[in-house]
Amino acid sequence: MDQINTIGVLTSGGDAPGMNPCIRAVVRSAVGKGLKVIGIESGYEGLIHGEFHAMGPRDVGGILQRGGTILKTARSEDFRTPHGQREAIRQMSNANIDALVVIGGDGSLSGALKLAEQGVPVVGVPGSIDNDLFGTDMAIGVDTALCTIVDIIDKLRDTATSHNRAFFVETMGRSCGYLALTSGIVCGAEMSLVPEVATPIEEITSSIEQAYRRGKQHCIIVVAEGFKPGAALLAEQIKEIDTGFHTRVTILGHVQRGGSPSPMDRLLATRFGYHAVEFLLAGKTNVMTGLDGKEIVDVPLADVIANPKVLTPEYINMAKIMAK
Amino acid sequence: MDQINTIGVLTSGGDAPGMNPCIRAVVRSAVGKGLKVIGIESGYEGLIHGEFHAMGPRDVGGILQRGGTILKTARSEDFRTPHGQREAIRQMSNANIDALVVIGGDGSLSGALKLAEQGVPVVGVPGSIDNDLFGTDMAIGVDTALCTIVDIIDKLRDTATSHNRAFFVETMGRSCGYLALTSGIVCGAEMSLVPEVATPIEEITSSIEQAYRRGKQHCIIVVAEGFKPGAALLAEQIKEIDTGFHTRVTILGHVQRGGSPSPMDRLLATRFGYHAVEFLLAGKTNVMTGLDGKEIVDVPLADVIANPKVLTPEYINMAKIMAK
Amino acid sequence: MDQINTIGVLTSGGDAPGMNPCIRAVVRSAVGKGLKVIGIESGYEGLIHGEFHAMGPRDVGGILQRGGTILKTARSEDFRTPHGQREAIRQMSNANIDALVVIGGDGSLSGALKLAEQGVPVVGVPGSIDNDLFGTDMAIGVDTALCTIVDIIDKLRDTATSHNRAFFVETMGRSCGYLALTSGIVCGAEMSLVPEVATPIEEITSSIEQAYRRGKQHCIIVVAEGFKPGAALLAEQIKEIDTGFHTRVTILGHVQRGGSPSPMDRLLATRFGYHAVEFLLAGKTNVMTGLDGKEIVDVPLADVIANPKVLTPEYINMAKIMAK
Amino acid sequence: MDQINTIGVLTSGGDAPGMNPCIRAVVRSAVGKGLKVIGIESGYEGLIHGEFHAMGPRDVGGILQRGGTILKTARSEDFRTPHGQREAIRQMSNANIDALVVIGGDGSLSGALKLAEQGVPVVGVPGSIDNDLFGTDMAIGVDTALCTIVDIIDKLRDTATSHNRAFFVETMGRSCGYLALTSGIVCGAEMSLVPEVATPIEEITSSIEQAYRRGKQHCIIVVAEGFKPGAALLAEQIKEIDTGFHTRVTILGHVQRGGSPSPMDRLLATRFGYHAVEFLLAGKTNVMTGLDGKEIVDVPLADVIANPKVLTPEYINMAKIMAK
Repeated sequence: MDQINTIGVLTSGGDAPGMNPCIRAVVRSAVGKGLKVIGIESGYEGLIHGEFHAMGPRDVGGILQRGGTILKTARSEDFRTPHGQREAIRQMSNANIDALVVIGGDGSLSGALKLAEQGVPVVGVPGSIDNDLFGTDMAIGVDTALCTIVDIIDKLRDTATSHNRAFFVETMGRSCGYLALTSGIVCGAEMSLVPEVATPIEEITSSIEQAYRRGKQHCIIVVAEGFKPGAALLAEQIKEIDTGFHTRVTILGHVQRGGSPSPMDRLLATRFGYHAVEFLLAGKTNVMTGLDGKEIVDVPLADVIANPKVLTPEYINMAKIMAK
Repeated sequence: MDQINTIGVLTSGGDAPGMNPCIRAVVRSAVGKGLKVIGIESGYEGLIHGEFHAMGPRDVGGILQRGGTILKTARSEDFRTPHGQREAIRQMSNANIDALVVIGGDGSLSGALKLAEQGVPVVGVPGSIDNDLFGTDMAIGVDTALCTIVDIIDKLRDTATSHNRAFFVETMGRSCGYLALTSGIVCGAEMSLVPEVATPIEEITSSIEQAYRRGKQHCIIVVAEGFKPGAALLAEQIKEIDTGFHTRVTILGHVQRGGSPSPMDRLLATRFGYHAVEFLLAGKTNVMTGLDGKEIVDVPLADVIANPKVLTPEYINMAKIMAK
Repeated sequence: MDQINTIGVLTSGGDAPGMNPCIRAVVRSAVGKGLKVIGIESGYEGLIHGEFHAMGPRDVGGILQRGGTILKTARSEDFRTPHGQREAIRQMSNANIDALVVIGGDGSLSGALKLAEQGVPVVGVPGSIDNDLFGTDMAIGVDTALCTIVDIIDKLRDTATSHNRAFFVETMGRSCGYLALTSGIVCGAEMSLVPEVATPIEEITSSIEQAYRRGKQHCIIVVAEGFKPGAALLAEQIKEIDTGFHTRVTILGHVQRGGSPSPMDRLLATRFGYHAVEFLLAGKTNVMTGLDGKEIVDVPLADVIANPKVLTPEYINMAKIMAK
Repeated sequence: MDQINTIGVLTSGGDAPGMNPCIRAVVRSAVGKGLKVIGIESGYEGLIHGEFHAMGPRDVGGILQRGGTILKTARSEDFRTPHGQREAIRQMSNANIDALVVIGGDGSLSGALKLAEQGVPVVGVPGSIDNDLFGTDMAIGVDTALCTIVDIIDKLRDTATSHNRAFFVETMGRSCGYLALTSGIVCGAEMSLVPEVATPIEEITSSIEQAYRRGKQHCIIVVAEGFKPGAALLAEQIKEIDTGFHTRVTILGHVQRGGSPSPMDRLLATRFGYHAVEFLLAGKTNVMTGLDGKEIVDVPLADVIANPKVLTPEYINMAKIMAK
């Protein structure tokens, strides 16, 4: 591999709180090592169209506490084609970008792998509020999303208690139930419904009724987006059955992506950005920065893409005991 | 009117943050005047069924900062019938409750008026996050609901900006656009759509497109629940039109009722509770406590029920100028 | 008075959350009326040194939710002298600034009056977290400061309860006890000590001891900065006396000035900024925008400076009853 | 060891947010295993005086989101003597308490070790916002304290920027700089001063001056309580030197212990409580529950007491690079 003088950085896919601190860490770490940094706007779409601008330490001042991403993000259909990828590589050459840091989720890191396979030195950084990426305990944005969810469920509980209600709360998580499971544990939910664990409707109904019999004044069921048939239909079905509670639904939606990043997300994002530059300079490319316990490790991008994330059985078990 | 020795207090209708500080203020003010206080559970439903318990100053300790209502609330079909009302009055007699403080919204105060017409000394307290009650500048819960809405829209703006999106955000407010209008002003929304002001879809579309042309990186449209055809259908229609932005919808829902009451709501609720007792003792009954500028005044319940709340034209006008 | 084509705007004195929304409202309202706006940096100091720049609607985008003031603020010794004032007027002439909007507290509005007396058309806007200005029910920043104080006292109560402690909490307010009195009411404090009400130490000690006897698990005493001898010395004296509680002190300090402005502050600031421009155009100058109940009124600057703000007796009385 | 039928649980030392979720987890896990749980009030002081009461699953409902500790806490002089310890063991025998879960910091776990040495089966749980305990990556309360600190520094930055100020912010941490170091990183501080790293005053002054020269509009220096001579004296000394900024001091104090526990703290506390019971039942006693990466492990109490916690050099290094 040739020497790296200039690093490009982009954010891609759904935005996640903490992307800005990560961009800041990439820029300041790289500049501290004597490198140049080019910011790429709007993810792979901007890479294809050459939306580039140089970034120095002052350009990333005051962004630590801001949600979203100053580089913007987009989903790019073009980049999925070999033609789009070729165009992207050409733009990088023209701008003398020697290596790339890609901050994003599953799809974004698949894109990074495509570039890596065509010879571009790439380090991926996991940014995905769902925490659905193999190879890292936590991704950027998960902790803030959890804070937002818990803040809202804590509020819903006020009104649930005042009205004797059962609330179905839908969180993000298409394939991974991490947010639903952990928010369920820390909010004292009766139940968390996740795509990884099949749960028949009878079990749900019975669980709500048991809560009523135990004298609970409210009942919270957290439902991951990917749990079929979804919170709204589920509530519809259960409304027909007499569980003792009135049922209501809340779909949390896009608010889960927003907000000032939590301290933990700022710290993780800073560590990821700092190590991404270290990895590039040490010749560790085509990897993702991963949190393994308390260490930041390099995980081959191919492994990240090939493997599913698994929910820890400890949490599933603990959730049941705590709901009693 | 006979002397008042014992006051009953109940919360009714949708819960609102600040009901607890109001209950606390009623109890402590009344006890300070040598009266007894009876808490009535679950609104008029509990009044009919005699769900009563005595309340002293220590019973309302530690509730100032809690959302919802410790007295619970419910909607009562029975109470709408003369039979239900007669039953309620009988229960009050049995428990020696001489007068009633009713904390709630439109429907709850209609109920209070029914009792008043049958000879029960009643003071109503406006509790309704919609701010839809005639006779008071602000009702309990409005300020906290506004804080919750603004907190969420501030978060949505992060993600809207990162993705170049137009967000339709639906707030509560079936007949009154106060929450949508004020949150629109203070969040820098492009537009607030309220039931009081007819707005053709062409105007909405054009407003979004203008925002795009002016170089805005996001566009927020706040839609009151009562604006037809609602945020979801509206977004569906506008999605078909090329405004430059991608459109998304968020329905805020029940979270708007929750949360620890804001300082302003705690203060207003305390004042209302304090004056409700003062009014009863001064023989001013069949009234609602109202905020008129900085004073708490007594407004006849009949006036409250008979008149609609009007949005101040100043705000409507200001919203337009600020969006430019 | 000549026609007004260009308005200058500055923030002065201690910063207050809401100054940014007010600047935004001045700019957008003025531009909407066809005027030009010049932003003046660092208060009167910048006025003297000509630190001016034109401001358009896009320059005030994205500042609604930001604390502090983008125009910065400073205290200016020079401006207190006739020489400094003459210099300021000369700079305004050079830049064709026809009128001035001054956002700030007592000292800043005194400065505005000096300019007014020398023929400059001025409108003042009350920005002062202390709420110590005559002629307006609320100043910009008061509601946010109250939110910050209440948030912190709610947290202190957790730890006070766990340890059976009496906490002396010092809030801002050199001459005006508004923040201490209202935060005391809404946080359930045992007592609020304010400069306006002399309170002998025996009364304080006795109040703490009574709380202990009544079985309270904590005791909060809110002390305004201007109450002598101050929270720290007071606690020192009371530590010697056996009240049942252990005493601790917290000085809230500068954090009270920070934070994203609350919805109410954003709304008030927007209204003030909007009306400041209206007043200038209507020839109502040498006045301050004041909140009178629900209306924005013009109050002569001379009256604002000449009169003290008075605490409402209703609150003082209510605070005592609620602490029981 | 005899069979365990009844577990006692107490909280001791300074309170930490998350103690309540931990108590809840101990109770629900133990009851789930068929054990009885006795809550002990006011730490070792209550243990000596037999302030015991049985706790069931409903007694710990609704406490997940509450700061402080429902079991209260205290520092006990008596318990440091052999006489006090003997008394404590006698009370446990009388109440048939077979084993103890102690939630607290350094001093509390030393006490636990004393009991263990005298034959009492004990499991300690690290609860200390300072994160100063050997054997665990994180203690209960650290994440919430960090959230509170960061929230306040984010607010101070508003006002620091508006006034061109350098703020010295003192956080907790007598022997351990974790809070100061991490909050410094995630708030974009110029510098974090920690007890573990000697920093001459010239270096501090030069760092502030450099920030001014680089065009920064504010400067934040986070100072751990244990860094000599402390934030206040430091600021006093630096005020004399012309760094370009005005200096101000804020002592955060007790507020750092309060507040609703963050999701991460609730989760960690739940895991610790759950595993504490598992450990007792598996015969793993005289240990502390420790977080090692993502696993909960048992660490001998003797090791916890004998070894100091070490700051990770990665963070110290990263803090310097990020401040540029």
